[in-house]
Amino acid sequence: MAPGDHRHLFVIFGGTGDLARRKLIPSIYRLITEDGLGDDCVILGVGSGDLDDDEYRSWTREVLVEAGFPQREVSSWSDRNVHFQRVPRDADSLDELSERIATIEDEHGLPGNRVFYLALPPAVFPSTMTRLGEAGLHESPGWARLVVEKPFGSDQASASALNELVHRWFDEEQVYRIDHYLGKETVQNLLTFRFANPLFENVWNRDRIESIEITVAEELGIGDRAGYYESAGALRDMVQNHLTQVLTLVAMEPPVSFNANQIRNEKVKVIEAIAPIAEESIVFGQYEAGTIDGEGVRAYRAEDGVDEASKTPTFVGVRLEVDTWRWQGVPFYLRTGKRLPRRLTEIAVTFRQPPLCIFHGHRDSCGIEPNVLLITLQPDEGFTLRFNVKAPGEPLTIDSQALRFSHDDAYGELPDAYQALILDVIEGDQTLFVRGDEAEASWRVYDDLLDHPCEPYPYVGGTWGPATLDASLALGGTEWTGERERARDAGDGTAPIDPRS
Amino acid sequence: MAPGDHRHLFVIFGGTGDLARRKLIPSIYRLITEDGLGDDCVILGVGSGDLDDDEYRSWTREVLVEAGFPQREVSSWSDRNVHFQRVPRDADSLDELSERIATIEDEHGLPGNRVFYLALPPAVFPSTMTRLGEAGLHESPGWARLVVEKPFGSDQASASALNELVHRWFDEEQVYRIDHYLGKETVQNLLTFRFANPLFENVWNRDRIESIEITVAEELGIGDRAGYYESAGALRDMVQNHLTQVLTLVAMEPPVSFNANQIRNEKVKVIEAIAPIAEESIVFGQYEAGTIDGEGVRAYRAEDGVDEASKTPTFVGVRLEVDTWRWQGVPFYLRTGKRLPRRLTEIAVTFRQPPLCIFHGHRDSCGIEPNVLLITLQPDEGFTLRFNVKAPGEPLTIDSQALRFSHDDAYGELPDAYQALILDVIEGDQTLFVRGDEAEASWRVYDDLLDHPCEPYPYVGGTWGPATLDASLALGGTEWTGERERARDAGDGTAPIDPRS
Repeated sequence: MAPGDHRHLFVIFGGTGDLARRKLIPSIYRLITEDGLGDDCVILGVGSGDLDDDEYRSWTREVLVEAGFPQREVSSWSDRNVHFQRVPRDADSLDELSERIATIEDEHGLPGNRVFYLALPPAVFPSTMTRLGEAGLHESPGWARLVVEKPFGSDQASASALNELVHRWFDEEQVYRIDHYLGKETVQNLLTFRFANPLFENVWNRDRIESIEITVAEELGIGDRAGYYESAGALRDMVQNHLTQVLTLVAMEPPVSFNANQIRNEKVKVIEAIAPIAEESIVFGQYEAGTIDGEGVRAYRAEDGVDEASKTPTFVGVRLEVDTWRWQGVPFYLRTGKRLPRRLTEIAVTFRQPPLCIFHGHRDSCGIEPNVLLITLQPDEGFTLRFNVKAPGEPLTIDSQALRFSHDDAYGELPDAYQALILDVIEGDQTLFVRGDEAEASWRVYDDLLDHPCEPYPYVGGTWGPATLDASLALGGTEWTGERERARDAGDGTAPIDPRS
Repeated sequence: MAPGDHRHLFVIFGGTGDLARRKLIPSIYRLITEDGLGDDCVILGVGSGDLDDDEYRSWTREVLVEAGFPQREVSSWSDRNVHFQRVPRDADSLDELSERIATIEDEHGLPGNRVFYLALPPAVFPSTMTRLGEAGLHESPGWARLVVEKPFGSDQASASALNELVHRWFDEEQVYRIDHYLGKETVQNLLTFRFANPLFENVWNRDRIESIEITVAEELGIGDRAGYYESAGALRDMVQNHLTQVLTLVAMEPPVSFNANQIRNEKVKVIEAIAPIAEESIVFGQYEAGTIDGEGVRAYRAEDGVDEASKTPTFVGVRLEVDTWRWQGVPFYLRTGKRLPRRLTEIAVTFRQPPLCIFHGHRDSCGIEPNVLLITLQPDEGFTLRFNVKAPGEPLTIDSQALRFSHDDAYGELPDAYQALILDVIEGDQTLFVRGDEAEASWRVYDDLLDHPCEPYPYVGGTWGPATLDASLALGGTEWTGERERARDAGDGTAPIDPRS
């Protein structure tokens, strides 16, 4: 842990909710027992349920056993450091909570450092925020930090209104907008890859790079989230946040230092340089019934809670241009979809061809493969480098080969994203969190496209997206660089089979 | 085979010599039986021995069996296509040979195409050349090509005189100066690696590269070649030809096309741009007794036929500068030695560090490893790329990793160098052969350094060369990039053990 006074009260709004159960309680438990946080962390769950401290402690133990910790190991962990405070949904004020916090801090001898983690649905975020501020919870002798879950707003106007609300009581330095999709290790790996390897960074520009593709594919459908997803769609759910975040890390200039605000300054600059997106540069799709891993999957319109004439896109392919000196003219393809053949996040960097093919005369056409760097972020971090060698014998024939570095093979699996992010909040490191202006700028890019009035292109569940006239945006994946690489990895050297054909 | 009339007479001067036995006869046999040369090639061995055709045919069969071909397979190959002509060492003229050639060409219906392969010691080259020319052997209705073995001269003046002699009868387009050390595949692999991979070629310059090391290490001593080696030494034997050839391939500009003269134009330009070598930029060494692979080896001065006070260097380390726009200021380290720990030829390209270490603050010092590209030419062709990744966990630590591509693993072992070179002669492709001006220019670089008057530094046989004050030129190999890479490959992460310490 970084030096400093880390003794604090960790207040979870939504203390018995889904996020607390699946992520927060197990992550904090690991930080306390494995990472030396120990007694520095006192937990206060806040919720509408009628629980006392002992009942909540017992609930957290169940949660931990559910998460795979042995019963005997967790049986005593929460005796002292875990509390619960009931706040009815319709509570006028949080005065009672305020008093409870004072009591607990006094009891544990805490210096008044507080984390407020809003693990709440977006709908109740503004009211909770207001009551929290009005109750003066943020005013303490120590530090106070606010953690906000995604989505942060649903368009630029709402994000801007939320920022205004938050900033009424909290400075930007106190606000941690969490977007756990990438995870701390992944972001740091990507920045290290770029800025510790001059070999690659030296060619990281419009003179050397032909195109960059960013793909976030999900195998899952919408599950039981129809209520949220019907009004969100893939552009809000994935592109505006996750894919745009990856884009900023790929396209950013070197920051002055590896420091939260310096890095976020550079990320915001990338977002602000994205040119307005033309209508023909975006394609929307929606999954139909299909098969994944041999199992039949329903069409989106047949999912529970989805309108049978819904136009909500579950797939987006968009071509962006980043108008900077470094990137002008280089197309960035962002693609994401649900019910694609597998889960993955990757960046395919295709380098320009040699300016002159000196091998002419030895082949009918030069036709060599471009150098490709395929950076995979999920599920197996690492990169693949495609290069050309001479095949043995005559006539001179250029052959394409690839090398793969797997982070998992070298180091084993990465730790859970939440654990590292919570530690960052406790240590006051904002690097991995989205800054207020960044969130707004990111919405602004897509604002005119968010409410797509047209019929999305259909695609069969378990395929790489819809067939459209613009193959670079979507064409069953056969044109995607990453997919071509994987087909080769599989050893058949061919494009992946499209189950529709 | 390339199109054209390949029917020819292959005349081997030194027809029963060591080179004919070990390389030429087996290579031509393979070309005839495996590569479709068939009846297009008629062989005429020339030598001082008193053999008739049948005896020579029988000798070639023994040679092939020795080379590993089955007896029954070679029993009939040379019945028709192999001839022998005795020429006494002190023969005044080659008129008899001239008549014999005419007879054979007539008998086999050959169009007058002739290869004259001078597989002779350098001492008898000028006299043979003169008699060959005076007999008018080069004058025929077809093409005539002259193949000259290395060494081509022993300094610039002698090389120049040899060129003058050769050009009295042959145009440069007819002359094939062979330097088989690299082999056709290796040269083509290197040029393909450079000019078919913009990722690497784009950083192939003084802005991006810190230094380039070229190493040719031999495990062998001088064997029974003391007579030649004592007057030659490592600078003549290896640096002037082999290492300088590798240098030209690494440093050359992209040729206009993959064509013999275009490539050789660029190679000559590199040699001509080599700056004069300062005295402090070269180190000479000589091996003492030691151990290789557990076997004791003698000191150079104790080898048969070597003067016991010999100053002949068996090791050379030299720092060159190539004064071109691409390379000015980048040191090229050329190192070679006999009785080093193992046989290898490699090129280590070390890239510059990032201009700014943005990871400061996360470590005491930035201290990251540079990106290194280690291209190995012998014994296992391929390359190793060293890059940096983030080690998992906190604090942020940069870790060095490497990927290796092995040409042998991908394609199996490469064919013999001689076979491909002989085919090139028959097809008239001069790409892999040293042009006259190139040979002279290459001698000119080292002319002032050839006859080293000082005592060379001693080094123990089986170590990486002498310890000197300038570690970049020679220091037991511990500072050599390639050696560091291999030590890591071995998994111990340390520098190689020096048996002297």
